[in-house]
Amino acid sequence: MSWIDIPDGSPFGPDNLPLGVFQRGDEEPRIGAAIGDQIIDLTPIASAQHLESAQQFAQPTLNGFLALGRPVWSATRAWLLDLVNDRDAVEPHLIPQSEVTMLLPFEVGDYVDFYASEQHATNLGRLFRPDSEPLLPNWKHLPVGYHGRAGTVVASGTDIVRPSGQRKAPDANAPTYGPSTRLDIEVELGYVVGTPSTLGKPVSVDDFREHVYGVVLVNDWSARDIQGWEYVPLGPFLGKSFATSISPWVVSLDALEASTVPLPTQDPPVLPYLAGTKLVNYDITFEVRINGHLVSIPPYRDIYWSPAQMLAHMTVNGASVRTGDLYASGTVSGTEPNQLGSLIELTKAGREPITVDGKDYTFLQDGDEVSITAYAGTLHLGEVTGRIIPG
Amino acid sequence: MSWIDIPDGSPFGPDNLPLGVFQRGDEEPRIGAAIGDQIIDLTPIASAQHLESAQQFAQPTLNGFLALGRPVWSATRAWLLDLVNDRDAVEPHLIPQSEVTMLLPFEVGDYVDFYASEQHATNLGRLFRPDSEPLLPNWKHLPVGYHGRAGTVVASGTDIVRPSGQRKAPDANAPTYGPSTRLDIEVELGYVVGTPSTLGKPVSVDDFREHVYGVVLVNDWSARDIQGWEYVPLGPFLGKSFATSISPWVVSLDALEASTVPLPTQDPPVLPYLAGTKLVNYDITFEVRINGHLVSIPPYRDIYWSPAQMLAHMTVNGASVRTGDLYASGTVSGTEPNQLGSLIELTKAGREPITVDGKDYTFLQDGDEVSITAYAGTLHLGEVTGRIIPG
Repeated sequence: MSWIDIPDGSPFGPDNLPLGVFQRGDEEPRIGAAIGDQIIDLTPIASAQHLESAQQFAQPTLNGFLALGRPVWSATRAWLLDLVNDRDAVEPHLIPQSEVTMLLPFEVGDYVDFYASEQHATNLGRLFRPDSEPLLPNWKHLPVGYHGRAGTVVASGTDIVRPSGQRKAPDANAPTYGPSTRLDIEVELGYVVGTPSTLGKPVSVDDFREHVYGVVLVNDWSARDIQGWEYVPLGPFLGKSFATSISPWVVSLDALEASTVPLPTQDPPVLPYLAGTKLVNYDITFEVRINGHLVSIPPYRDIYWSPAQMLAHMTVNGASVRTGDLYASGTVSGTEPNQLGSLIELTKAGREPITVDGKDYTFLQDGDEVSITAYAGTLHLGEVTGRIIPG
Repeated sequence: MSWIDIPDGSPFGPDNLPLGVFQRGDEEPRIGAAIGDQIIDLTPIASAQHLESAQQFAQPTLNGFLALGRPVWSATRAWLLDLVNDRDAVEPHLIPQSEVTMLLPFEVGDYVDFYASEQHATNLGRLFRPDSEPLLPNWKHLPVGYHGRAGTVVASGTDIVRPSGQRKAPDANAPTYGPSTRLDIEVELGYVVGTPSTLGKPVSVDDFREHVYGVVLVNDWSARDIQGWEYVPLGPFLGKSFATSISPWVVSLDALEASTVPLPTQDPPVLPYLAGTKLVNYDITFEVRINGHLVSIPPYRDIYWSPAQMLAHMTVNGASVRTGDLYASGTVSGTEPNQLGSLIELTKAGREPITVDGKDYTFLQDGDEVSITAYAGTLHLGEVTGRIIPG
């Protein structure tokens, strides 16, 4: 690999090769693989080599490729790992990432958001329901989740318009309307479904890798004041639906394989449909920056529910998954004060400001730029960013 | 109109002309308009007449047509109303509905389910939270809603596989897994979005007709035992996501125009973004049959929230809508015992069986067929059906 110049600090080494959709100037959007700070333009290479999946690279979304399924995903990865050693084939088709715009990598089918971090669910329970047990009785029996808005999942870098809506202070008589004053982030890992399932047929907890292609980083922007007023009894809606940002590069489960760790002990034991032989977590660490200042380093490895259990649970009632479905872990929070994945947790609902750039800080201000990056050992998962603009 | 034979009891008169997607034998699926028990095959007629939107009829979904927007919708309706008088043009292209399969009429973007019937929300509140006020504090300030699963919205007539999942009896120590024993219906009206909106820009309550093309009947199948255990704190998920059936014929708002009625008085007054000059309801009556036996006649006219308010609320935070988005009213229940839109209400959570075909009846049994029809004066909205099959 000595022939490709991978700058120090560049996220994508030759063992990762994540896929994304790029657009250069007026050219048609198409699929590339990231290496260092460049992109391998796969379409002409695959076409010249008469690769069977070649036409799927000349597409504006990954959906066609994702639908090809595990055998093609694995074959493509093997091909890519070989390809990067072939200077003659690759060099003419390297494009600097700085010359392109990265688009939303796939058309999102359904978007489901789980709530799989015990620490986060406990912290939020304390803040939203101070008078009762923070963890509700169902939490350790099933991965709690809900449907989010698929149509407002946006590409990293998309400006986030501060949402307006209804909120009511606990001591107020009536709600008021206005821009959210408690705008927050949620640091999550998102799983990207490739192979669809059949309506009426649950997906086994052991078939996770047959259906899921890879992962993206997710920032599930949240308006806590809107959420707090609206969310009973049917769950979060407008407090979340204004935007969910995802990273442009989809990292394959194959690339993440070296970073698997066992799931934490689940007690009480789960029902048989959630018990499996291949339940894993990933040893991923996030870094959250606001305006360039590191504010948190949430660890994914301690998350309570495996993504395989999330998929099995999501389909146990016969609900089908489609190519392009996205399901996210829910906010990732660790046990340490600098490991919390949302500002509502980091600032104890705004009561205990953190320090950002030497100043007291609670919720997001107009103009703030949030960046979430993540790594699993030497494997980097890229970045998801977004800047808040006034409503 | 004397030339077309419209049998007695046939739902679709010449003032309705709803659009749907049909497939005859191996032919390509395409768009037709219903009249009596026949279908007007629009593709060859529009093509022969060089209609601008002709190519949109030769499609397997209504999405392309829906995206054309209000001016084209209205022009198409005017054209259709004229066309049915033109025997020479139409007669060669009439197809008996008995010869075709009706498909899902549009590809669903996001599916949102509201909770807009005061009577239903009150009844459910009493059943799910017997120890507190049935109507929560936010209910009269905003149309409560949540996202459902778009990928499991199915065409009328699709068999419904009884879902399995976790449920826990109130006095049990732990949940168990098994087929739902409290399988239910929800009688709803669904609104079909045609014209998309822009991310970050709320849709005004007065722009309802610019974005919404028409309505379908919705049966939002529900597993009450699964729902009761899972739904706190993030709302319904697997208790709903296994299937939502919609009627095949999309009835236009234009056709419904004659059935508009004023909205019931809203007290307390709503915030300005929910107040408008064109807030209407529709005077629609549903009929619910189980195995052919009439069990309920829910009235839509008393629903608390206007569909214009639902749309304005859904987008007040800047969330965008897309062509093919579906948002439903939530279960429609009236004040009379024979006007309830779900079995959990009709049977007081199973404690007071109703009589169906001379027998005690609580929740859906395998083999049962549910049919929901509706009419607004002489205008019929078609039918949504589904049969329960074992898991």
